[in-house]
Amino acid sequence: MPAKFSVPKSNSLNVSMIVIGDEILNGRTSDLNGSFLSRYLFKKGLHFKSLRFIHDDESDLIKALDDSFNESDIVITSGGIGPTLDDKTKNILAKYFGKKIIERQDVADVVTKNYSQFGRNWTPSQNFYHHFPKDFFAINNPRGLAPGLGFFDSDKQKLILAGPGVPREFTEIVELEFFPLMKKYFEKRLVENYQTVIRTKNIPEEKIFYELCPTLWDELSVFGKVSSLPHTIGIDIVISYEGSLKEHENKQKKINEHIQNSKLSSFVWQYGNVPINELVLKKAIDKKVTISFAESCTGGLTSSKITDLPGSSQIFMGSIVSYSNDTKTHLLNVSSETLKNFGAVSIEVATQMALGALNEFKTDYAISLTGIAGPEGGSEKKPEGFVVIGYASKKKNGARFFQFPGDRIRRKDRFSDMALLTLLELMNDLSE
Amino acid sequence: MPAKFSVPKSNSLNVSMIVIGDEILNGRTSDLNGSFLSRYLFKKGLHFKSLRFIHDDESDLIKALDDSFNESDIVITSGGIGPTLDDKTKNILAKYFGKKIIERQDVADVVTKNYSQFGRNWTPSQNFYHHFPKDFFAINNPRGLAPGLGFFDSDKQKLILAGPGVPREFTEIVELEFFPLMKKYFEKRLVENYQTVIRTKNIPEEKIFYELCPTLWDELSVFGKVSSLPHTIGIDIVISYEGSLKEHENKQKKINEHIQNSKLSSFVWQYGNVPINELVLKKAIDKKVTISFAESCTGGLTSSKITDLPGSSQIFMGSIVSYSNDTKTHLLNVSSETLKNFGAVSIEVATQMALGALNEFKTDYAISLTGIAGPEGGSEKKPEGFVVIGYASKKKNGARFFQFPGDRIRRKDRFSDMALLTLLELMNDLSE
Repeated sequence: MPAKFSVPKSNSLNVSMIVIGDEILNGRTSDLNGSFLSRYLFKKGLHFKSLRFIHDDESDLIKALDDSFNESDIVITSGGIGPTLDDKTKNILAKYFGKKIIERQDVADVVTKNYSQFGRNWTPSQNFYHHFPKDFFAINNPRGLAPGLGFFDSDKQKLILAGPGVPREFTEIVELEFFPLMKKYFEKRLVENYQTVIRTKNIPEEKIFYELCPTLWDELSVFGKVSSLPHTIGIDIVISYEGSLKEHENKQKKINEHIQNSKLSSFVWQYGNVPINELVLKKAIDKKVTISFAESCTGGLTSSKITDLPGSSQIFMGSIVSYSNDTKTHLLNVSSETLKNFGAVSIEVATQMALGALNEFKTDYAISLTGIAGPEGGSEKKPEGFVVIGYASKKKNGARFFQFPGDRIRRKDRFSDMALLTLLELMNDLSE
Repeated sequence: MPAKFSVPKSNSLNVSMIVIGDEILNGRTSDLNGSFLSRYLFKKGLHFKSLRFIHDDESDLIKALDDSFNESDIVITSGGIGPTLDDKTKNILAKYFGKKIIERQDVADVVTKNYSQFGRNWTPSQNFYHHFPKDFFAINNPRGLAPGLGFFDSDKQKLILAGPGVPREFTEIVELEFFPLMKKYFEKRLVENYQTVIRTKNIPEEKIFYELCPTLWDELSVFGKVSSLPHTIGIDIVISYEGSLKEHENKQKKINEHIQNSKLSSFVWQYGNVPINELVLKKAIDKKVTISFAESCTGGLTSSKITDLPGSSQIFMGSIVSYSNDTKTHLLNVSSETLKNFGAVSIEVATQMALGALNEFKTDYAISLTGIAGPEGGSEKKPEGFVVIGYASKKKNGARFFQFPGDRIRRKDRFSDMALLTLLELMNDLSE
């Protein structure tokens, strides 16, 4: 099975991004803007051609601009538009496009507007925001103070948009300001991108494509570009393509049917791409039920994932994070006998923890977790990565165990997603 | 205050990275490998020159290789070395360096070793891992199955290292295999990088550099490259430079003294760069005290951050996540009178919540949070982003309120870090 080099080439609008700032390449902060833009552009049907991270350095930025404009119609930068001395984007862009920096009243007006959003006044003595390249347009920053910069080169049909580095400012300026500008200059070339996602569990990538369904990859390639991606719960299979919404719905139906008729179907936990916490929230709201957790090894992460979602207070009553055995007996009513006989990480304790949460919070469903996140604390029978997930409702209770790879943080992530999936399955159970 | 373009140029070894895979540019997954490598290279004194994200596409990879080798001595790739059809890195690298792919017994041995790490057998019928470019070396993958690839071009003195895309595999192969290889080929050119970090709270970036200390930036630039970075709790000021450990310690001492003698000193909460959860864990272990939480708006995130750290079970007893008023009265003993009179988000309720946790978990210290994460639920007096953090020990109790910008997820992050800082300050208090 040799690798195939032919890739369906996109005819859509190409966008490149340059993230400017020492802090990311020096390991000080993790990027959020690139990953946001990748999701956003995909939804909007723009092709994210390339993403570059560079230092706060003039020659590096100029080279990155050359390379980016070489392959893309639109270049978006993030970072370096603030008031401090390491903010050099404005001056470099001016130089790059051969524009002088001048004092501009129209830019001062945009800055004044940005400040007034926060009930603050701006005067030219505070900073040099109103010194701005000639012929550039100043872009309102809906969540920040520094104005964004834009310039359209009508000869070459290229657009530059420079936004702030702070993620909450960047995401907002992209949605409210940059996208309308991209539409304005390139409306005719916008297409739509879609994906069909099949999410599996309990089967390794190799098993799927080499043993269980050796022709599946080729079969799915008929519909679009196939990728196989490991996720917390298992392997996601993603098929990406361009087209209209109607074409997408049609393809999605065919792909799902194809999988449903394959040997893979029993390993699929979702035909779709909704995060597990959202599925749980929606199901609980639909069923008008309440939920609670008892968490040991995940230390509150499962509860935190549910409360990431607005509206979760309708259905989520609370959790007991029981990191000590004492808490397990005292707050969750786990018997000390059971703890002694079976150990804290056991089917018996997990079941009692779930029942304890069900009782304490008087909810319809409760899920518990007890396991070994590592890096130490494992044994031969219960190694690091071993977790027991308990469940309880008025009608049934019990527990299942799993084994996950990864480090401590990654395991907490996987444990908690598997707990949420267990809760979803419990709520979906027809016998409930 | 015009921007300065002169940047201290690094003479150290340049490394560029290419992250290969549609999944990141299409918004399916967030990058972890680039951010890991940035932290790792910095510590090891290598200069992370540039980071590129590209699609699974031959011509894009070839262009990225050209650009990367143009500016760097070492190029590291991640992704595309697995067994499926979208894994094309091996074939493209072979072509790029003009090497034929041949069957190699020495590579089969590395693959067999990779499989045996997981107690599994490998046979050539399972995949084509043993088909490998001539003159390349196969690199053991300590956490995965697919071998990494390496090739040193001795004429041009350039090194390519290709690793897996899965983060737990990538981080391990970099530490255990790639770094020794980089050392082997470039030992003489390795230097050391250091940073001094000053972490502030309760003061905006602009205030620091324009109002409070207008000459600080220039003063700090004497020591190295200055950056100013927003963090969850406040603004971090980072000064980066090359040199020996001794030179670093000397600079750090001088920088810290400089800040201690400036107007900024009362806004500094840390001279250093230790994550807040680690500071709390270390302090609690040193003081031999126990801690617990009562969380409302953060939904378990504060507890989860403490339990991200190995060893936290020594000092962390547990938490009650009280998302409903009922839980606050029932499990935390908050009086329904107080809830009615002051509302769930109040100094009074936060204080009672902290006392409730202190009692229930019998800990030395307890911290509570109650606030409005948004996007809805705020009022004029208590808008979205408003949070009350309560504290309790045997000797004292009370609460403070804060207001944070951001969306729901970002606010949860900030609320919980501020809760941890409050706990740290409580433990540091000499009157305790």
